[in-house]
Amino acid sequence: MNIVIIGGSFAGISCAMETRKLHPKANIYILEKQSTIGFIPSGLNLTLNEEIEDITQAYFVTESDVRRANIKLHLDSEVTAIKADEQKITYYDHVNQEHKIMAYDKLVLAMGSRQESSILHDWSHPQLVTTKELQNAANGYAKIDKAQHIAVIGGGQIGIEVTEALVNANKQVTLIEAETSLLSRYFDQDVVDSVQEAIEIVGVDILLDEKVMDISGKSLKVTTTKRTLNPDLVILGVNLSPQSHLVADLLPLNEDGTIVVNDYLETAITNIYAVGDLVQTPTFEEEQAFIALVNNAVRSGQIAAFNLFEPRVKHQQSLRLIGSRVFSQYITSVGQTEIEASQHYEVSTVNVETPYSITISDPVKLKLITDSKTGKILGAQIRSEQDILSMADTIAIAISNNLTDQELAFQDRLYYARFTSTQPIIYLAALRSFENRLRNTK
Amino acid sequence: MNIVIIGGSFAGISCAMETRKLHPKANIYILEKQSTIGFIPSGLNLTLNEEIEDITQAYFVTESDVRRANIKLHLDSEVTAIKADEQKITYYDHVNQEHKIMAYDKLVLAMGSRQESSILHDWSHPQLVTTKELQNAANGYAKIDKAQHIAVIGGGQIGIEVTEALVNANKQVTLIEAETSLLSRYFDQDVVDSVQEAIEIVGVDILLDEKVMDISGKSLKVTTTKRTLNPDLVILGVNLSPQSHLVADLLPLNEDGTIVVNDYLETAITNIYAVGDLVQTPTFEEEQAFIALVNNAVRSGQIAAFNLFEPRVKHQQSLRLIGSRVFSQYITSVGQTEIEASQHYEVSTVNVETPYSITISDPVKLKLITDSKTGKILGAQIRSEQDILSMADTIAIAISNNLTDQELAFQDRLYYARFTSTQPIIYLAALRSFENRLRNTK
Repeated sequence: MNIVIIGGSFAGISCAMETRKLHPKANIYILEKQSTIGFIPSGLNLTLNEEIEDITQAYFVTESDVRRANIKLHLDSEVTAIKADEQKITYYDHVNQEHKIMAYDKLVLAMGSRQESSILHDWSHPQLVTTKELQNAANGYAKIDKAQHIAVIGGGQIGIEVTEALVNANKQVTLIEAETSLLSRYFDQDVVDSVQEAIEIVGVDILLDEKVMDISGKSLKVTTTKRTLNPDLVILGVNLSPQSHLVADLLPLNEDGTIVVNDYLETAITNIYAVGDLVQTPTFEEEQAFIALVNNAVRSGQIAAFNLFEPRVKHQQSLRLIGSRVFSQYITSVGQTEIEASQHYEVSTVNVETPYSITISDPVKLKLITDSKTGKILGAQIRSEQDILSMADTIAIAISNNLTDQELAFQDRLYYARFTSTQPIIYLAALRSFENRLRNTK
Repeated sequence: MNIVIIGGSFAGISCAMETRKLHPKANIYILEKQSTIGFIPSGLNLTLNEEIEDITQAYFVTESDVRRANIKLHLDSEVTAIKADEQKITYYDHVNQEHKIMAYDKLVLAMGSRQESSILHDWSHPQLVTTKELQNAANGYAKIDKAQHIAVIGGGQIGIEVTEALVNANKQVTLIEAETSLLSRYFDQDVVDSVQEAIEIVGVDILLDEKVMDISGKSLKVTTTKRTLNPDLVILGVNLSPQSHLVADLLPLNEDGTIVVNDYLETAITNIYAVGDLVQTPTFEEEQAFIALVNNAVRSGQIAAFNLFEPRVKHQQSLRLIGSRVFSQYITSVGQTEIEASQHYEVSTVNVETPYSITISDPVKLKLITDSKTGKILGAQIRSEQDILSMADTIAIAISNNLTDQELAFQDRLYYARFTSTQPIIYLAALRSFENRLRNTK
C-alpha cells in the first residue's frame, strides 16, 4: 500500500503524520522539490527579532521527526507528471539528476501556493524577494543585511510582521498597501488604526490606497498609482496563488486556480486528493474561498488522511482566525469583520474595554460583531499589549456552534483573581450586546 | 420602584450592577452587614505573595464604582427580618445603632455562604481563622504574622493557595485533607500528583486521608483521625454553608441549606429571588449542586437581574471551572473528572504533552475525558509552568455545546508561530481521542 504525498509543507506533513497514525503499516512517501521541510512562515521574523537564536530553530517539524514516524522523505524531488490511469507519478531527483517513477495507491496533492504577479517583469531580479522565498532561504537574510531602504508590498499580516522585523534591524521601510487600511481582510479600520499609528511612530512610511503598477529597472524602480520609489530591496508580501499547474490538464480547477474537490477532499479522479492551499475552504455564509492560512492547511491535511479509504470527515469551515504581535500589540480576529457581515446581516457591534487583570492594568479592547435580530455571534477583533490571542479560540467555538450573544454572555467561564476579572471581556461584550438587543426590540 | 439586594458580595453586586443597566430609573439598594464590599477571595494571597502592594488593592469593585452606578449602598446594615406579606424588611444599622424598615418591590437574597463545622467547640478561638474571615479582615494578616507553625485544614483550592502564601511568608505549614488526594473535587489524582510534590518539596507536611475530629484547648490542640497537633494557628479552609438562616422559616430550603428556586431564580414567594451561594446550580447529568464558585455567583446575580420583571434567562449550567497558580504551576479543570464521569459513562481518557510554544519549551500537559462510545467531551485538566488557564474557557464552550472529540479536533483555531504550535494541545488531544475511538470501534 503506497500513499504518496506531493509537497512537504504544513498540509503535506500533517497529512503524512496523521496517515501514519491511522495506517501503521502503509508505505508513506513525501516528495518535496526543495531541499528542506518544516520551515515556519515567521521564522525570519523570529530571527530578526532575536526571539530565537538561529533560523535553524524555526521549524515546526524536522526531517528526523518525519523519518522517525517511518515516513519516506524524498527531498529535492520534483514531480513532473501524474499518470492517473496507471496510478504512477514521474519525478525528477535533483541530487542524482535523474527521472524516477513511483506507483501510488493513494495520491495526495499538497504543493501549496506561491507568489505570482502580473506587474513583475523580472521575477529573478536580484533586489526582489518574496516572503515565501524568505521563509525558505537563509540568503534572504543576506539580501536584507545589505539593503538600507526596503519597500514592503502588502499590508497584510505577513507584510506587517516583516516590516516590524526590518525596523528592529534598523532598516528604513516603506509599506505599500492597495486597500485603504492595513490588515483589511481581517480587521475593521477602527480596530486597526492603533496598529497603523504604532507603525508610523517608529518611522515607517505607510502608503495606503496605493497600488503598485510596475517593478522594473536595473536600479529597481517601483511605480505606484501615485509615485515612483527607488528602494534598495523590494519584499513582496502579496498575491498567493495555488501551485496547481502540475494538474491543470488532469483535474478541473476553480477560477482562482484551486483544485475542485468534494466535501471529503477527493478530486475528480478516484484515489487523488488535494489539501492545503490547493483547495478552497468552506467559509462564512456557505461560501467557499481560497484562504491560505496555516490552520487550514494543517486541518485539511489531517482530514484527507481520515478519508483516504472511506469518506469519514468533511472538510471544515474556516473561521479565518489570525493573530499576531506587531509593534508591542497583540491583535487577533475571528469570523467576519463588520464590513463583511453587513453584506448578509443587519449588524450590531459593541466595543468593550477592560483591564487585563487585577494586577496588570493594560487595557484589552474587544469589538464584537453580531446579527442584530437574532444576536448570533458573527465575529470579534481583540487587541491589547498583553497576550490575549487565545481568546480567539474561545470565540471560534461560539461562532461555529451558532451561539447567540445571550448564550455566550451566560456561558460558564473561569474566574481567577490574578488573571481574569469577575467579568472576563468576552462574556462582558456578549452581555452588552444582549442588553442592547433587548433594549432595541422593546 | 425599590429593588433591594441583601448582601454585597459577588452575586449581590453583579445583580445590582446589571439591574442598573436594565432599569436605569429603579431605586436599587444593597444592604451589607459588613463595613466593606468587593474584596476578592485571593486578596490575602496576592498580598502575601507581594503581587499587589497593599491589601487595599484587592477589590473587584469599589464603593465608589457602586455609588457611581447610582446604587444606594448601606454598609454595616444587617437585615433581621423579612415581612413578605407587606414586602418590607427590617435591618439593624450598626453605625447608628438603630433598627430601620425598608419597603421593596423586588427583593434579591444574596447573603452568600459562611464556614461552619460541627467539630469546632469554640468559633471565637483567637488562634482560629477561617479563610472567609481572612478575605475580609486585615487582622487575619496580623494573626499570621505572629504564628510560626500553622495548620491549614482543607486541601482544596483555597487551602492550597493559602499554604503557598504562608510558605512565601516563611511559615511552617501542615496541610490536612480528609480525601486521599489534594484538590480531589476538581482533579484526578494522576494530574494532581505533581502539585503535591511541589508542595512537599518546599517543606510543607501534607496529611492526606486524615480527618480533623476536634479543635480545642487554650493552647490549641488539633486532633485528627491519626494524630494530635499543636500549631500556633489554625486556618480553616473547608465547609462552606449557605447563609440562609434569615429565611429558614419563610422559604423552603434544600437539605444542604440552599434556598429552593425555580429555573429563573425566583423563590417560592413572588418578588423574592435568591442568587450566588444561596442557591444550587445546574451541573452535570442534569443534577443540581451547591457549588460555591465566584463565576457561578456573578452569573446568577446577573441572571436574576434579567428575570426581575419577566422570566427571561434560565439559570445556567456550571461546568465547575477552576484555575490556579500554585507553587509555580498553573492548573485548571473544567467539566467532570475521570472518577466522576465514570459513574455515568464508559470513559476514555487521553494524556497529551506538548511544548508551550516554539520559543518556550516548558511542557503543557492535558488530560481529556470523553465518553468512549460517542466521543462526547466530558472534562479536561491542564497544567503547565506557563499560563494556560484560558484554555479552560475554550473547552467549556465545547462541553456545554456537547461537542464530540471529532468535532473539537477539527474545530478552527488560531495558528501563531510564537505561541501556538501547528497542533495546539486542545485540538491534538481531541484528535488522539477520536483516533482511539475509531480504532476501538473497528
